[in-house]
Amino acid sequence: MLGSTHGTLTTDLRARVEACGETPRAAVHCTAPASAGDAVPLDVSGRPLHSDVPDLDRLFRPESVAVVGASDTDGRPAAGITRRLIAWAERVGARIHPVHPARSAVYGLPCHPAVGALPEQVDLAVLLVADPLPVIEELAEAKVKFAVAFASGFAETGAEGAAAQDALAAAVRRSGLRLLGPNTNLNAFEEFRDDLEGPAIALITQSGHQGRPVYALQELGIRLSHWAPTGNEADLETADFLSYFAERPEVGAIAAYVEGLKDGRSFLLAADRAARNKVPVVAVKVGRTETGARTAASHTGKLTGADDVVDAAMRQFGVIRVDGLDELQDTAALLARAKPPTADGVAVYSISGGTGAHFADLAAAAGLHLPTLPQARQDELHQWIPAYLSTANPIDNGGHPVGDERGRKIIDAILADPSVGVLVCPITGPFPPLSDRLVRDLVDAAEHTDKPVCVVWGSPVGTEDAYRTTLLGSSRVATFRTFGNCITAVRAYLGHHRFTARYRSPFADAPRTPSPSYRKAQALMRPGEQLSEHAAKQLLRAYGIRVPREQLVTSAAAAVRAAGLVGYPVVMKASGPQLAHKTELGLVKIGLTSASQVRDAYRELTDIARYEDAPLDGVLVCQMVQRGVEMVVGVTRDALFGPTVTVGLGGVLVEVLHDAAVRVPPFGEDQARAMLAELRGRALLDGVRGAPPADTDALVEVVLRVQRMAMELDGALSELDINPLMVLPRGQGAVALDALAVCR
Amino acid sequence: MLGSTHGTLTTDLRARVEACGETPRAAVHCTAPASAGDAVPLDVSGRPLHSDVPDLDRLFRPESVAVVGASDTDGRPAAGITRRLIAWAERVGARIHPVHPARSAVYGLPCHPAVGALPEQVDLAVLLVADPLPVIEELAEAKVKFAVAFASGFAETGAEGAAAQDALAAAVRRSGLRLLGPNTNLNAFEEFRDDLEGPAIALITQSGHQGRPVYALQELGIRLSHWAPTGNEADLETADFLSYFAERPEVGAIAAYVEGLKDGRSFLLAADRAARNKVPVVAVKVGRTETGARTAASHTGKLTGADDVVDAAMRQFGVIRVDGLDELQDTAALLARAKPPTADGVAVYSISGGTGAHFADLAAAAGLHLPTLPQARQDELHQWIPAYLSTANPIDNGGHPVGDERGRKIIDAILADPSVGVLVCPITGPFPPLSDRLVRDLVDAAEHTDKPVCVVWGSPVGTEDAYRTTLLGSSRVATFRTFGNCITAVRAYLGHHRFTARYRSPFADAPRTPSPSYRKAQALMRPGEQLSEHAAKQLLRAYGIRVPREQLVTSAAAAVRAAGLVGYPVVMKASGPQLAHKTELGLVKIGLTSASQVRDAYRELTDIARYEDAPLDGVLVCQMVQRGVEMVVGVTRDALFGPTVTVGLGGVLVEVLHDAAVRVPPFGEDQARAMLAELRGRALLDGVRGAPPADTDALVEVVLRVQRMAMELDGALSELDINPLMVLPRGQGAVALDALAVCR
Repeated sequence: MLGSTHGTLTTDLRARVEACGETPRAAVHCTAPASAGDAVPLDVSGRPLHSDVPDLDRLFRPESVAVVGASDTDGRPAAGITRRLIAWAERVGARIHPVHPARSAVYGLPCHPAVGALPEQVDLAVLLVADPLPVIEELAEAKVKFAVAFASGFAETGAEGAAAQDALAAAVRRSGLRLLGPNTNLNAFEEFRDDLEGPAIALITQSGHQGRPVYALQELGIRLSHWAPTGNEADLETADFLSYFAERPEVGAIAAYVEGLKDGRSFLLAADRAARNKVPVVAVKVGRTETGARTAASHTGKLTGADDVVDAAMRQFGVIRVDGLDELQDTAALLARAKPPTADGVAVYSISGGTGAHFADLAAAAGLHLPTLPQARQDELHQWIPAYLSTANPIDNGGHPVGDERGRKIIDAILADPSVGVLVCPITGPFPPLSDRLVRDLVDAAEHTDKPVCVVWGSPVGTEDAYRTTLLGSSRVATFRTFGNCITAVRAYLGHHRFTARYRSPFADAPRTPSPSYRKAQALMRPGEQLSEHAAKQLLRAYGIRVPREQLVTSAAAAVRAAGLVGYPVVMKASGPQLAHKTELGLVKIGLTSASQVRDAYRELTDIARYEDAPLDGVLVCQMVQRGVEMVVGVTRDALFGPTVTVGLGGVLVEVLHDAAVRVPPFGEDQARAMLAELRGRALLDGVRGAPPADTDALVEVVLRVQRMAMELDGALSELDINPLMVLPRGQGAVALDALAVCR
Repeated sequence: MLGSTHGTLTTDLRARVEACGETPRAAVHCTAPASAGDAVPLDVSGRPLHSDVPDLDRLFRPESVAVVGASDTDGRPAAGITRRLIAWAERVGARIHPVHPARSAVYGLPCHPAVGALPEQVDLAVLLVADPLPVIEELAEAKVKFAVAFASGFAETGAEGAAAQDALAAAVRRSGLRLLGPNTNLNAFEEFRDDLEGPAIALITQSGHQGRPVYALQELGIRLSHWAPTGNEADLETADFLSYFAERPEVGAIAAYVEGLKDGRSFLLAADRAARNKVPVVAVKVGRTETGARTAASHTGKLTGADDVVDAAMRQFGVIRVDGLDELQDTAALLARAKPPTADGVAVYSISGGTGAHFADLAAAAGLHLPTLPQARQDELHQWIPAYLSTANPIDNGGHPVGDERGRKIIDAILADPSVGVLVCPITGPFPPLSDRLVRDLVDAAEHTDKPVCVVWGSPVGTEDAYRTTLLGSSRVATFRTFGNCITAVRAYLGHHRFTARYRSPFADAPRTPSPSYRKAQALMRPGEQLSEHAAKQLLRAYGIRVPREQLVTSAAAAVRAAGLVGYPVVMKASGPQLAHKTELGLVKIGLTSASQVRDAYRELTDIARYEDAPLDGVLVCQMVQRGVEMVVGVTRDALFGPTVTVGLGGVLVEVLHDAAVRVPPFGEDQARAMLAELRGRALLDGVRGAPPADTDALVEVVLRVQRMAMELDGALSELDINPLMVLPRGQGAVALDALAVCR
């Protein structure tokens, strides 16, 4: 079987999981389970491995715009929108063409009866009509590139609306134009300040109102480049904008408010692009609870997905998930503008020992690293800071030194230390004689360093000049209002750069053709049925996952013969296609050491099965496997992402503590190892109470083989559960003691 | 032994734990382990059961103040303080008397050479001298009630400073005056706005700078009544101010910033007073991490205590612990002003479906209850809200209805519903045509209801008129800036009232005299030693905790006889005063079913013990106990609070997951049950995989008996660990299979 894998796993693992048979063999020709004839390369599950970046330049910056259904009749909603579009066009230098069959002019602009009758080909048509469907063909004929549909009453209203949306989407697909909406609004054509410096935030929202706070950051000096209000996403979806923004040079970070996703894979491909381009994506994703998921679904008519799966998928691709819009603002603003860190150390500098202690406590609790400054640096700081105050980090200057030229020297000395990647100065209360100069020094120092300088302005008032003018006037200092948000943002900043530095796209390595195991597996599948334990284990064997020596027998005499071959002591289990909860039903006998015990057990198992009316395909006589750490590895299907792979602690633990980690394929060995690190009970794998460390390399290998199964058998397998997988001591592998497989 | 306790436990438990013997018996006279001769009643551990409320009226509102060390020499720190005190005295109508041996006048006020020479008896002396110690006696002679010492250089600087502080504290105790400080500042004499309405926040801080944000709330219309900057607490401590504020009628909530506590019990007694008076206490307590604890200790020279113990102690007495000063502000402000809730339901009302879904999601994830409004109420709301929008809760009005008189009707209808205890209206972005009127309606509606009306003003700008004037101008609406802080505050508000409604002071029920068990226990204690397993179990038996039938033997023949008496199968264990990790050393043999096995086991155990050089007092022959849920119950000592009681899941779980709950005595049955509810693996007690539910009543009883031991044996026991306590199926009790006890 697999034998010892310790020591050589990392280098060999991918090749071995790809060969995926019990012994590597020459490639076997077999057809992929899904069509691979498309121009877009597909993985073995039939999902795309690549997505194009849509060219949305002319959607956001059109030169000419048709307003279909334009109006200037007071009180009509269309009139308000027309007026705002005309004002917007004037600002950005676009030409507006009102279109209406019954008007000759709208707000003084000549109005045409149809898009085809316009004096020029337009980039964008804004559709203010109640039903955009009939207009689509006309737009296509006029070679309009983009349309925005404001009408509501589609998927967000129920089944009838969903059908209308499907029809609209089909018409759009045929037409070749790209549609934003329906059920969207004017947010894409808001006024963006062009006097702000530095990298910008690009914003994607599925609710206009929820984008307002990020948009309002411009009033605090944070640059915004785009706002994509995606509405119902009949055509263009969150993922399209994610991809597009991830390629724009002016975009420093993407902020997203997501209620549901249209398609799991397209979101992952877009997030992968952002990760490869090292563009941070910060997202609020509604759906932590049933209440939230239900309400969000009724708002946009989209799936929210199982939250733990969405959460894992985001982490796999480096999307930074936050809870509140305030965290979205603050985290995106820091990430958009800060250069990559040169060290992961955070220096906390304050004019009050209490403030420093409090911030340091919360920062350390959140996992930030606060290095103790080297003695030489501390000595340097003590030139300006009284000897009785601590300069170790947090650095407490006691207040007075910031009132003169010492203040700036202290800041520069801290920033000069190689262990410091980020400087945070929490100022909980303004005391103008000190804090005004401190803030000016920080702003100036930030101009002369590539290290992020963060200030927490803790006054709840927020009208102080030092805050409004000095701090918010700086494009280099990152200003926060709470300790919590500063810590969240700094953690995300350091985490993002750590993540992207070692990121390798899993799509590059995702299998495109079935492994040799696939044909063997196909023969075992029984559509719509739950396989017997024996068949499920054969499936695992096909994918090179070790199972105990075992034989399926149908008589007591055969059981005794089998026990002789398997070797005493043995375990005996009833085996049948619909059997579950065998232990609870008394259908498992362990530790049988003699022929007579085996004979008795055979009789007892078949009796119980008859009594329980459970049809058997026989009785399994299995090798007893030595003790190890019981784990669970499985495959379940998510509505949004398809098959997912789960690993958890087995036995009572998985039931009581739900201590499991999940991933969405494709993922690599790094993520399989990260799954183990996520388990609260991971110390069990290291060995507790004198137990030897478990063979985590073998466990990782099983996880990756199960991923391979999940992808290749996506069309045929609806659920797989290895429970328990006995992970033996290091170097001895892992054995699947029981398995449950349900075919689609 | 204890027998079945199910069904009658709650009523009988207290009486039975108090009798505390295996069988209740007539009270036995025995001396208390600690002196009980004081005027203050003491519990059996010698800790006070009551603390007086100091009368601090004249500290905060003195009529006459001596400023010792007053100065008007430009640039001297004392001059600045003197000037500010004179200005403060003018505002509040107090008389200031400068005291200085070398000046005849300070800022135009006549200066006297000593306090004894002043023309009147003063309430308060502000000490600006570098060493306050020599002045104390003089103050006492002049019958000064209060002193404030600004000098630093005491416990916060190390051992020498701590000794100086001890001397100062002793002088103060002798003098009879009460001292604030040293190492404090002018915060107690800040300007408090007297034009604000409603119940006020009283503030306690151990760092002046850290109190600034709460103080600044006055600029946002929140009333503040007091600020106690406790400094080093040589005399007056946080607990004194907590008690005092908890008795003041104008105080609606107490906000505290705590770095360390001077004494655990005095803090608990003060928190108990606040809980009995139903005055909410919201606190930041630094020390979640080693970094924070260390830094805080060097700042104020106080102990931070083990954080999990501090955390538990706060929860036991209803102190609401928060992390950030922003949460401290927002939570204290809501709790100070909101009337008790009439229902625990939270209604979420928004002008955007996205906003409502997002808030509801976060609120539900935080455990808030969002009731679905009754159909009749929804029908009522649909008079004003379009039919396609949800009125179930969250209630989405789609925006337009708030622009006219429908807006107010919707708010009133929601507030009228009996299921609604709190109304939250999140407004993520201002849109003046709608949000201005919405805000006015909310402010007006809040004037006509006793239910809290909460608004989240999500704009990061915060200079909007609707926010600054309308919302902050209301003393009835609670205004927040983030979803997160609103949810934290509402949760604290509902939790506080739930807690205080059923709160019963544990000090009322705390034992004052030793139980009959105490004398038996005393005979078993061996000062400074670890007891043998057998002795530790006798200690448990003395307190009515069941242990297996067992005999300690010193020969193989005696072992066989003992096994016959105990009953086969038996467990045999080496027993010795310093033995730990017996299982790992092979010093436990289980499931012995015959005399020959017992003889072999005896030989093997004594051989191993010889080999390990572990002196034995014999071998235990114990009854095998049936399977149950393995728990751990123990006593450890905390530097701040003394003995604490811990309960956790046993076996591998406690080691791997640290799944344990802790409490500080005294606590009642409610808290013992709450400990079990805190365990992540609590489902194990309910029975999983077909296992029967465990006897949690018996477990609770053991926890309470262990608490009794912890209190009575406080002077003699430094550590106790029952591991495992086997909790049998419901009705069958719990048995301590092993125990470790270390004497002081």
